Amino acid sequence: MWLRNCWYVIGWEHEIPDGGFLARTVLGEALLAYRTATGRYVVLEDRCCHRHAPLSKGRREGDCIRCGYHGLKFDAAGACVEVPGRATPPAAARVRTYPAICRNRWVFVWMGEAGHADPAMLPDNFSCGAAGWHYKPGYMHYDTPYLLICDNLLDFSHLSWVHEKTLGGSTAIALARPTLAPVDAPGQRGVKVSRQVPGVPPPPYYAKIRAMPPVIDRWFVYDFLLPGTLLMHSGGRPTGDAPDDMRNAVQLHSCQTLTPETANSTHYFFMQAYRADAQHPAVTEGIYQSLIQAFDEDRDMISAQYRAIQSAPGAPMLPLYMDAALVQFRRLLEREHALEAGLRPAAA
Amino acid sequence: MWLRNCWYVIGWEHEIPDGGFLARTVLGEALLAYRTATGRYVVLEDRCCHRHAPLSKGRREGDCIRCGYHGLKFDAAGACVEVPGRATPPAAARVRTYPAICRNRWVFVWMGEAGHADPAMLPDNFSCGAAGWHYKPGYMHYDTPYLLICDNLLDFSHLSWVHEKTLGGSTAIALARPTLAPVDAPGQRGVKVSRQVPGVPPPPYYAKIRAMPPVIDRWFVYDFLLPGTLLMHSGGRPTGDAPDDMRNAVQLHSCQTLTPETANSTHYFFMQAYRADAQHPAVTEGIYQSLIQAFDEDRDMISAQYRAIQSAPGAPMLPLYMDAALVQFRRLLEREHALEAGLRPAAA
Amino acid sequence: MWLRNCWYVIGWEHEIPDGGFLARTVLGEALLAYRTATGRYVVLEDRCCHRHAPLSKGRREGDCIRCGYHGLKFDAAGACVEVPGRATPPAAARVRTYPAICRNRWVFVWMGEAGHADPAMLPDNFSCGAAGWHYKPGYMHYDTPYLLICDNLLDFSHLSWVHEKTLGGSTAIALARPTLAPVDAPGQRGVKVSRQVPGVPPPPYYAKIRAMPPVIDRWFVYDFLLPGTLLMHSGGRPTGDAPDDMRNAVQLHSCQTLTPETANSTHYFFMQAYRADAQHPAVTEGIYQSLIQAFDEDRDMISAQYRAIQSAPGAPMLPLYMDAALVQFRRLLEREHALEAGLRPAAA
Repeated sequence: MWLRNCWYVIGWEHEIPDGGFLARTVLGEALLAYRTATGRYVVLEDRCCHRHAPLSKGRREGDCIRCGYHGLKFDAAGACVEVPGRATPPAAARVRTYPAICRNRWVFVWMGEAGHADPAMLPDNFSCGAAGWHYKPGYMHYDTPYLLICDNLLDFSHLSWVHEKTLGGSTAIALARPTLAPVDAPGQRGVKVSRQVPGVPPPPYYAKIRAMPPVIDRWFVYDFLLPGTLLMHSGGRPTGDAPDDMRNAVQLHSCQTLTPETANSTHYFFMQAYRADAQHPAVTEGIYQSLIQAFDEDRDMISAQYRAIQSAPGAPMLPLYMDAALVQFRRLLEREHALEAGLRPAAA
Repeated sequence: MWLRNCWYVIGWEHEIPDGGFLARTVLGEALLAYRTATGRYVVLEDRCCHRHAPLSKGRREGDCIRCGYHGLKFDAAGACVEVPGRATPPAAARVRTYPAICRNRWVFVWMGEAGHADPAMLPDNFSCGAAGWHYKPGYMHYDTPYLLICDNLLDFSHLSWVHEKTLGGSTAIALARPTLAPVDAPGQRGVKVSRQVPGVPPPPYYAKIRAMPPVIDRWFVYDFLLPGTLLMHSGGRPTGDAPDDMRNAVQLHSCQTLTPETANSTHYFFMQAYRADAQHPAVTEGIYQSLIQAFDEDRDMISAQYRAIQSAPGAPMLPLYMDAALVQFRRLLEREHALEAGLRPAAA
Repeated sequence: MWLRNCWYVIGWEHEIPDGGFLARTVLGEALLAYRTATGRYVVLEDRCCHRHAPLSKGRREGDCIRCGYHGLKFDAAGACVEVPGRATPPAAARVRTYPAICRNRWVFVWMGEAGHADPAMLPDNFSCGAAGWHYKPGYMHYDTPYLLICDNLLDFSHLSWVHEKTLGGSTAIALARPTLAPVDAPGQRGVKVSRQVPGVPPPPYYAKIRAMPPVIDRWFVYDFLLPGTLLMHSGGRPTGDAPDDMRNAVQLHSCQTLTPETANSTHYFFMQAYRADAQHPAVTEGIYQSLIQAFDEDRDMISAQYRAIQSAPGAPMLPLYMDAALVQFRRLLEREHALEAGLRPAAA
């Protein structure tokens, strides 16, 4: 189950080369994304209307795409502007286009009705593009449905077990009960998860960002938004400092988003940024490597979980207290999915 | 969709070793082909009637095949002539045989009712076996349905795009409009495609066959026959020479045929011969390598096209003018398929 | 088709490390087997009741298993004894357990109703654990249904063909007609196959066990038991010695058992022991290598047979005289399967 009237990340800005394109499947649809000479983003159906060859087997010609099988040429509006050997292309010769936009280095595509595409619904991944925030962008492919990964991100109690030797460190982090609330960001639907962890030692890499005392208060506060985006503030300040006093704090912000590739596979785009006047390459790389190591652990566990689910389809799961956020999120998804199903006929 | 009352190529003559056999699946049926001591061709079902072990896991014994599991021995008529440890094999112990014939180094098998097998329906692949024609035989396996490859061979306009840097050379070749006509060869059903390209430079390899002037007239004339065979005359003569004057011409003949392995995979047998008193090994190899390079390009494109088709089953294609030959061929196939379906009950 | 109210071997005793566990799928169910500190065998469903992560991605903690995803801890009775961060686990938090027992180094699991588990139904694999019997244990995985392997073991006539150059040696062994009878061992259902081969040369490796004359009488007598276990006495004595005179005989005993992994894959546990006061390592290894070589030949043939069967589902097989034992066994299986199906509702 997935929503259509949503923005999905199709790629990092840098994955689309100047003068080239990126081919990627989203919600089971083969897409081709590129940037015109004037910097506008275009997403086309990656399938020629003639004999269904992927346009990505062809080439860019200016702001057009030439099919590599029989040479049909399509412009950025999806219209066929040339059929080799024929004067005028038939009007029916066109491929579907999808609204696209780049915001803070994430390139988004709107998979629903084009008329409903609303930039106000873009998630605020500000730290991907703001001065003073430093990170290395990440991408990972999953051979599992995206919702199993949402589950994982909505319940950090797994840190104590899956990431016991990597991210987890202090089990205090994972076991601290989070508070949940509806997201109140404009245009967004989701679950806000807040977790305060007072009086714990700082993790080792904090020392690379700034000097820290031996005991600090840490926080993890994130919005988990439909269709599958995590935006998290986290950090630590010397115990005793006021909650809004960031003068001696380490401040981190993480943007992570899940884009279903197919019903059973997922694109995962992620980063974790730290706030500093200047970038420290070793810190940037260190944080990135920590993420990669931990996300490999997640993927290993979630892939095993998915195989176990497939081997006994329909077997019931047992809800437990740590599922609160993911249950809320799945209910929200179901409600929006039903609304969308109901709205769509009216809009057609 | 495929026809059964047809000759299909199961292999090149040299693929069947003396005293051995060739195992290959045709139209989804596992077959085993061999040549008897007297040179007759035999095709058996590659499945023992006892417990279904493939006979190809066994061995030749004279003109018989011995199953490698329990030792049943079958003669060239498919009859079981020995059950180890038992005096007389039961009459029901036999495997299916298929009419087979070798013509000009292609070994054909008849996949329909044996009583309908008619050598007059064999395609005239004369250049595979005639003195004065020189080539190196080719084979390629496709993981796509055979009809997508038929499409490709029925529309050479793809040469300008798929083979832009290999076979294509002059886009004049591809863009020259062909004329289409029904095939008039006896016993054959198909589409005749004729393409004349006057006043173009000769391709580089012509110089290896004979000296050519800088401007020549080229021709590509082929029959594309059911179930999937291309027989093509092509070549070039100095511009100004009469069409029937071959004294200073380069003459080529290509035989290519597609045999469905399964609904989704295909055997492709091919060659392109040049006419000369004696073989020039470098020319032979050069033409062969050009074919391999170009057919790899085709396979890459057609495989991508097939994946795109599979990802959106039933999505409509947009017919264009260059599809004329392939539309005619598919109509012919559908008509013959319907006829065959209607005839079969009467024949049974 | 398989029986549930049966003992199946899940592994060799040594495959379960002290303090660890063995994960293996039996009858399509993912299982986890371990040995408690007091030596009791435990088999749990390898799927956490919470979110279905495999417990085998977690770890042993004493006689309990800790799930590696969210940290639930299960005891040897399948009860959840800890949900991290919550005082008391809900009563519904438990995983299924299966009766298990180790007998003569084979670890058995009962896949049916626990109340019916009866140690009297264990096959008598005595030579796996008896003093004076020497062997090296074997395991092999098949990507075929288990019944095709049962067929193979129920008809040794294939020795002459599949193992012509390995085990077969004298075709006299294979062609000697066996006598068949119902198994009369208590608690067992199966077919007894007896084959006497008088006046043949001893196989070469006999000489390593003891000196033998040039002509001996050989015997192969085995029970093939539901659900798929072969227990075979074989050996040879100097021709002229009385049948019960073992003073100058070579005595062998082989235990082999098939455990369906899924409908289309199988675990194969096997050994062949020889009787001697002391072990001769070279003989042990030589017998083991002979088995491995021959069982590879079987697997190659049976896998090919299975592909052929799959390519023409439902095509009839032709029963022949050598199928007598396997036909009897399949009838027995069908009868027991029907009985089990009928009994199960009553027991539920």
